[in-house]
Amino acid sequence: MGDFAFDADTRVMASSVRDEFAAELTGRWNGTNGAVNGGYMLAICLRALGLRMQFPDPIVVSGFFLRPGTAGPAVIGTTLTRSGRTTAFGEAVLWQGGKDVARAAAAFAALGGGAAGPAFMAGAPPDLPAPEECVGVPVGSFGLATIAERVEFRSASLPGWFRGEPTGRPASEFWMRFADGREADLYALPLLVDSTAPSVLELGMTSTTVQLTVHLRAHPAPGWLACRAGARFVSGGYHEEDFEIWDSAGRLVAQSRQLAMILGLCVAAYASRLRNRTAPTTSRTAV
Amino acid sequence: MGDFAFDADTRVMASSVRDEFAAELTGRWNGTNGAVNGGYMLAICLRALGLRMQFPDPIVVSGFFLRPGTAGPAVIGTTLTRSGRTTAFGEAVLWQGGKDVARAAAAFAALGGGAAGPAFMAGAPPDLPAPEECVGVPVGSFGLATIAERVEFRSASLPGWFRGEPTGRPASEFWMRFADGREADLYALPLLVDSTAPSVLELGMTSTTVQLTVHLRAHPAPGWLACRAGARFVSGGYHEEDFEIWDSAGRLVAQSRQLAMILGLCVAAYASRLRNRTAPTTSRTAV
Repeated sequence: MGDFAFDADTRVMASSVRDEFAAELTGRWNGTNGAVNGGYMLAICLRALGLRMQFPDPIVVSGFFLRPGTAGPAVIGTTLTRSGRTTAFGEAVLWQGGKDVARAAAAFAALGGGAAGPAFMAGAPPDLPAPEECVGVPVGSFGLATIAERVEFRSASLPGWFRGEPTGRPASEFWMRFADGREADLYALPLLVDSTAPSVLELGMTSTTVQLTVHLRAHPAPGWLACRAGARFVSGGYHEEDFEIWDSAGRLVAQSRQLAMILGLCVAAYASRLRNRTAPTTSRTAV
Repeated sequence: MGDFAFDADTRVMASSVRDEFAAELTGRWNGTNGAVNGGYMLAICLRALGLRMQFPDPIVVSGFFLRPGTAGPAVIGTTLTRSGRTTAFGEAVLWQGGKDVARAAAAFAALGGGAAGPAFMAGAPPDLPAPEECVGVPVGSFGLATIAERVEFRSASLPGWFRGEPTGRPASEFWMRFADGREADLYALPLLVDSTAPSVLELGMTSTTVQLTVHLRAHPAPGWLACRAGARFVSGGYHEEDFEIWDSAGRLVAQSRQLAMILGLCVAAYASRLRNRTAPTTSRTAV
């Protein structure tokens, strides 16, 4: 596992203080603002909690983002709050320089096998062309967003914000996978739901995540993940962003929602700057 | 304020221990299983946090439900985790008998006035007949659910589960308000999004909430609240439930999602038991 970036970069080590773990936030999962991605910090918190839980599977995690995370050492403090018959609960704090950067709470359980199969589905995976027929925004186009080098995206057409023509429609469907071939698992999904360009870029807006809740609904099958992201309500200086991840077997594996605060209206200049830097890629790797 | 049930029953009092508050969970907000409603406990946690925050408005709260709450005394422990320029963060634990019952985390801010008006809305309030043309499930029909005496619901037609004929469609739209005339505010919304019969009753299922996240998007205007509830994905022993509340001015004021664990398949007997007990009400009160 250690050969993959996600595993190397979310490793936590027991410390001399009981219930605390040491981690190293690498600079390899930064967003466009140069800060460490929130979903990446949630994944690290889950790693630490997972070492202490009596159940194997995170089923829901809620994270609040108090300060921007920066590349460098971090300490993860963990608390087990309840261990029940079917569900265990815990909380984690990610500190840097003695200050709270992110705070997470999670529930763990044992996700069922085939026995507890689908009972009702009012949604379906996005209907996308095959990944090899899709296009991706060039990795080098995301400015400070090193996370774009770690996670690969493909969509039927290039996003409006990239073309310098925001569509006014903050919703999208696309394929996603780790660029280095690591398959997604439950621990990776909270990072993946937070790894894309925010939907409100299509409204010419940028925003920052206040809180993110991720439901982990099933162990993902190997292969490309089909995703649907969108913001439906942008008002009063905030917006929600919903995200679904469907695996290659057509199962919903993660569903998330975040509350984000709008920072400004700036995408036109941003997009045209990006556009002039590099040409779009076509498919570069085998599926 | 104290004349209204919600205010009386969510009151918190400073205790002799710093950062702790005393509360009394009344038996007036119980769900159908006889346990104290989760949203009610979240409202109490928010009350305690609100006394310590430098910003007036809760904007997001996440709650995990570790044990059933019961009528009787509770202690709320609070922690302020960050007070920033635009946003403050805190956490609360609701203890009964020395045990964690619910754990909440929240962010507070100052919700904008008219200046930061709607920027993008991909949804609209439910299209319902006027409340006086709607019907409600009789208050006495909810078994142990005393919360039904405190919150009034009206929909265009009676729910399938009440008629003993679950529709197979776990989604609904309805009006809601406090029965005693109290107007909703930001502190009441986390209770209200959790106060209705779960959508999966229409699939013949019962469930229990593991985690609930509520976004509070605007101060509600006085009057009836138009609501939309639904579960889209029921699989692997869990389901999500989404909830929107729109105020009388047509604004989205709350948006919530919970993860719930399915407890069993039992509604047929339950519904027919309810059906035989009382006849449906028509509108009883002026709008």
